[in-house]
This record gives sequence, C-alpha cells and structure tokens, in this order.
Amino acid sequence: MVLRGDRVTLAHGGGGRAMRDLIEEVFTDSFEPASMEDQARLEAAALAEPGARLAFTTDSFVVSPVEFPGGDIGSLAINGTVNDLAVGGATPLWLSAAFIIEEGTEIALLRRVVATMKAEADRAGVKIVTGDTKVVGRGAADTLFVTTSGVGVIPPGRDLAATRIAPGDVAIVNGVLGDHGACILAARGDLALTSDLQSDCAGLGHLMEAVLAAAPGAKAARDCTRGGLASALNEMAEAAGVGIEIDEAVLPLRAEVKGTCEILGLDPLYLANEGRLVVFVPEDQAEAALAAMRAVDTGAGATIIGWAIAEPAGLVTMRTLFGGTRIVDMLVGEQLPRIC
Amino acid sequence: MVLRGDRVTLAHGGGGRAMRDLIEEVFTDSFEPASMEDQARLEAAALAEPGARLAFTTDSFVVSPVEFPGGDIGSLAINGTVNDLAVGGATPLWLSAAFIIEEGTEIALLRRVVATMKAEADRAGVKIVTGDTKVVGRGAADTLFVTTSGVGVIPPGRDLAATRIAPGDVAIVNGVLGDHGACILAARGDLALTSDLQSDCAGLGHLMEAVLAAAPGAKAARDCTRGGLASALNEMAEAAGVGIEIDEAVLPLRAEVKGTCEILGLDPLYLANEGRLVVFVPEDQAEAALAAMRAVDTGAGATIIGWAIAEPAGLVTMRTLFGGTRIVDMLVGEQLPRIC
Repeated sequence: MVLRGDRVTLAHGGGGRAMRDLIEEVFTDSFEPASMEDQARLEAAALAEPGARLAFTTDSFVVSPVEFPGGDIGSLAINGTVNDLAVGGATPLWLSAAFIIEEGTEIALLRRVVATMKAEADRAGVKIVTGDTKVVGRGAADTLFVTTSGVGVIPPGRDLAATRIAPGDVAIVNGVLGDHGACILAARGDLALTSDLQSDCAGLGHLMEAVLAAAPGAKAARDCTRGGLASALNEMAEAAGVGIEIDEAVLPLRAEVKGTCEILGLDPLYLANEGRLVVFVPEDQAEAALAAMRAVDTGAGATIIGWAIAEPAGLVTMRTLFGGTRIVDMLVGEQLPRIC
Repeated sequence: MVLRGDRVTLAHGGGGRAMRDLIEEVFTDSFEPASMEDQARLEAAALAEPGARLAFTTDSFVVSPVEFPGGDIGSLAINGTVNDLAVGGATPLWLSAAFIIEEGTEIALLRRVVATMKAEADRAGVKIVTGDTKVVGRGAADTLFVTTSGVGVIPPGRDLAATRIAPGDVAIVNGVLGDHGACILAARGDLALTSDLQSDCAGLGHLMEAVLAAAPGAKAARDCTRGGLASALNEMAEAAGVGIEIDEAVLPLRAEVKGTCEILGLDPLYLANEGRLVVFVPEDQAEAALAAMRAVDTGAGATIIGWAIAEPAGLVTMRTLFGGTRIVDMLVGEQLPRIC
C-alpha cells in the first residue's frame, strides 16, 4: 500500500511512479492481467478454427451519476460491451478498459467501480486484459468516464444480422423495459421522484447462448440501450426492409416505470435498458427460444412482443390498447442525456 | 447532407436520428466500416496460423489543445494505439474509436479530427472498424476525448518482452527526443513561447517491421510516450532486472527542445514523444538494426544511445557530458498534464 491520499491528483496521470502506483493498487491488483506490458498478448485458439470470425466493439460510458441503484459506471462498461458482442453472436472473451478521471475524484470511488467491473467480468466469463488511465484537471471531465472495448469469437457458421429478418419472424424481449432509464432519472434526484427501481444492467452472454442453442435459426438480436426498444426495432426494420409490428397489450412494463413516464411525458419505448435485448427468431422456433430464455436468470421475464411483417417496410408500428395502430418512430432528439 | 447546425448538441448523443446522422456523416462516411452493425465481424485468417497470438491494447487521449503543429488528437489516437501494438511485435490490423464530445464542439473540428484519423490509419495499414459517440453537457468534458483500442497479430515465434533484455544488448532510439512534449507546451500559448516545433507523432509499425527483419534477435521495444524515454527505460530495466546506461553526449535532442527545457526547468528525458521508440537488440545485430531503421522515414534519426549492463540492476544511469554518472529515476509526479 503505497498510494498516498484519498483523491486522484494530476500526478496520477503523468506516466511516472505515482501513475504506476495507482494502476497497480487500484487496477491491476483487481484485474490481474497476465503481464504488465502495455499490450495484452493472447493465445487465440478459438480463433484458429476454420470459419471462426473475430468480433470487436467499443463503447464509452459517461453515465451521471456514476453510481446508482443496481449498478455503477463499471457494471455498464462491462455489460454494455459484453452485450454488444453477445447480440452479434460472439462469445465474449477479452475486454480493455480505459479510464478518464477528473482530478479530485475519490480513490475509494475508483476502487468500488473497479470491484464492480471485476465481479461483472467474472460473471460474464471475460477477462479484462489491458487498460489505460488518464487524469484531467478539475472541470475538464465529470468525475469518471470509462471506455471498454471487447473482443470475442463468432463460431463458424453463426450469422446473426438484422438484414436476415423476414416477415413472420417473431420478436422476443427478455424482460421488463425501461428500468435502467427510469432508475437513472430517479437517481439524479432533481426530479423529486423517489423510487425503488433498480437498473436492469446485466450481462446477456449466457442468455444469447441459450437462445442460439434452442433456436439455431435465430436471425438477429440487438441490445436495447440508448434510444430503447423503439430505436433498436427501427434500426432492424430499416436494415431488413421489413415492417415490425408490436402489441402494446403485451409489452412488459412495470407500473412504476409507466407512472414515471406519464408524469414526465416520456415514452417507455425509448427508455434506455442495459440488460435487455430483442431477438428475432423464425416462428416455428419462437416457443423453444422463449422457454430457453425463461430458464436463464436474465431471461425470466421473456415475452413475445411482436413480429416482422412485409408492409409497411422499414417502419415500426404498434397495435395500441385502444385497437388502433400507431407508428413508433425513431427518436429524433435526446430523451435523457448521459444515461449510459 | 442532413446534419443541421455547426455544433454538436446533446441530441447528437441520444441514440436517435440526430445521433445517426452525425455518425453517418462525420464518422462512417470517412471510416467506411463494412457494416452498420454495432460490432465489427472480422475474418481472422492471420490469427488462424498455428502459434499466432492476438495483441490487444487501448488508450484514451485527452490532449489539450486538441489540434497542434504536426497533428491533432486524432493522429495521437491512431498512432498511439498502432505503436502500442507494433512495439509488442504485433502487426496492427483493426482499430476501434470512441468519442466523448462536449456539447457545443464545432462539427468542423470533428470532421478535421476524423479526416486525420482516416489518413493516419491508411498510412499505418489499419482499418477503423467500429466506434461509439457520446455527448456530454457543456463543462462536463473539455471539447473532445478519443479512446482507441487496437487488435493485431503477433506472428508465430515472435516474442518481444522487456524481461528478455540482457547485459550487452544495445539500446536504439529512432530520432530526436521530446518534440511532442515541447510542441504541446508551446501550442498552449500560456508560456509566452513561440516555436517552429512540430509534434513527432507518427505510426511506427513499418519501422518495427524493418527492425525485426534486420535484427531478428531484437529483445524488446517501447514507445516513449508519457514520461518520455526515462520512464520507458526505467520500466524495462526493472522488468529485465538489468541496469541500463545511456550516454548524454549522443542523445538526439534539438537545440530548441533543450532550450525550452532549460527555460522551464524540465528534463527532456521525461518529455513525451508520440513517434519515438527505444528498441534493445543483441550487440551483434545493432548495426544492422540501425541501418534498417535509418532506411525508413520514421527512423531517419536512429541513434544508439546506450546498452544494458549487469549492475546496478533495475536502475537507469547516464554518463553525463562532464564525465560523471547520474541516476535517471522514474518520474515521480506529473511533468505536463494532458500531453496525450
């Protein structure tokens, strides 16, 4: 224990001994990389299989507040990147983590975030193998930003792509929608809302494996993060050139999330989730996929919410509770800044 | 051209149509990823070779100012990550790029940075295959932070590691030291310095390939970024359990950089470089390595600066111009914040 003081200083970003102390005590003692070289060197046996492909993704996380009920920026950073790999059909293997830290940030906060990251990585079966820290002066960043990148392997023959969705395919989500967005809103405290809501933040790798085992014909999946279910469905409808129709009566929504949205004039279809995905499977595999999802903890609330249709191509529509149909457009502006 | 206005707004980070317009017009039109899925899917033929290893690295860039003589945050972000891969013996292949943008940042600035990134990626022979953008409110970040991660392939049988350095091995740098650090200092303008200095920012993949072809017994290499040559050598001495002795008389330094350091009380050995590396090769391969480096544009100024010695183990020492010897310690605090 050589780390002095309880807050990060500019010296911790300078490339010298103070930085090394911070990295060793806070980061590598927890993440335990195989070496202290600046780049991870990884045996790529799974990639050597003929036809295997490498999946590669990145996300920056800027959520405010950094900690919230059900998670923190670290759980978002691990699960967000794990989920990006998983919905592409990849088995997540290795993650990098880069930290931009505001001078004055509590080292205890960093330690908590890093502990969360380690726990979530273990749960997802991935290793954090390389990283970076930068420190910026007070006011040049807001506490802590984390950028993770992920590498995974797509097994030979597996091909999930939104372009493959065809009319008749069934859309399944793995649980109630909007908890993360509503939880962050409440956690900001400036809305005078009190709430027991927790973020839905979770890794979905195991769930995707279960879906793909039960429904090998699965066409495509998306995690419903920024922009919510509505944005994910719009992207998929546009990519596939199909319509997507969902049924308001069956959408899994907590009364509490609905209530929060009504008060604030928000639409829960656009609320961010960090542990929810939508997957399209052929109709004859829908029941098998649903059963397999429900057998996994992150899929306990799995629900069929709609299906792909031929027309209107590229549009998402919803059968409303009142028997009508309305267009669920892509979000135009910003519903909630810094939700992830 | 659907992008309205000339500055980034919070709506550009919201996950909806405004974000997609920004991403398409500014980022993907330039980087041209193979698909718009959220994860790149890459044919990994080079990784299928028996014994090949995957190299994986990440860095966040927070340099201030964002643009400076000889480069911008984009050239640092590409070359910094390319160089991390190259000094590990990897052939750089694929990069990710994640942007944290302050509300109000000029879209024209973003376009310039992205154009630099594309040009540097092309020069290095790498593809930017996936990315992310987040927008934070005014004052929550300073203009623009960029995090890149890189994936490369280490060919079978290639093993560069600081632990392999042994007494007698020769240390070579590829050119004058400290230009980047001195250039950023001058560019900040608050030191009343004027200067013609340009950043040395450059990709070193081709240079490393030349070294490894000419000196297949090369032991280890490090890029001399934050903390400068002194920090790189200290890390290597400690990892290898050898001493490293350098010779002040032969250190390649511009008079202008020396002068800036004298005025400001800085030590050029600790100044950051973004296109400089130090490589250790067996003594009998040193001349071949030197000649090969000088034949590459980024190695024109290659110079032998020292050698590994048995004692004092773990320490870096310098023969001074006055005939004495002094310890070149690891930087303790912060010499210059936000240098990269």
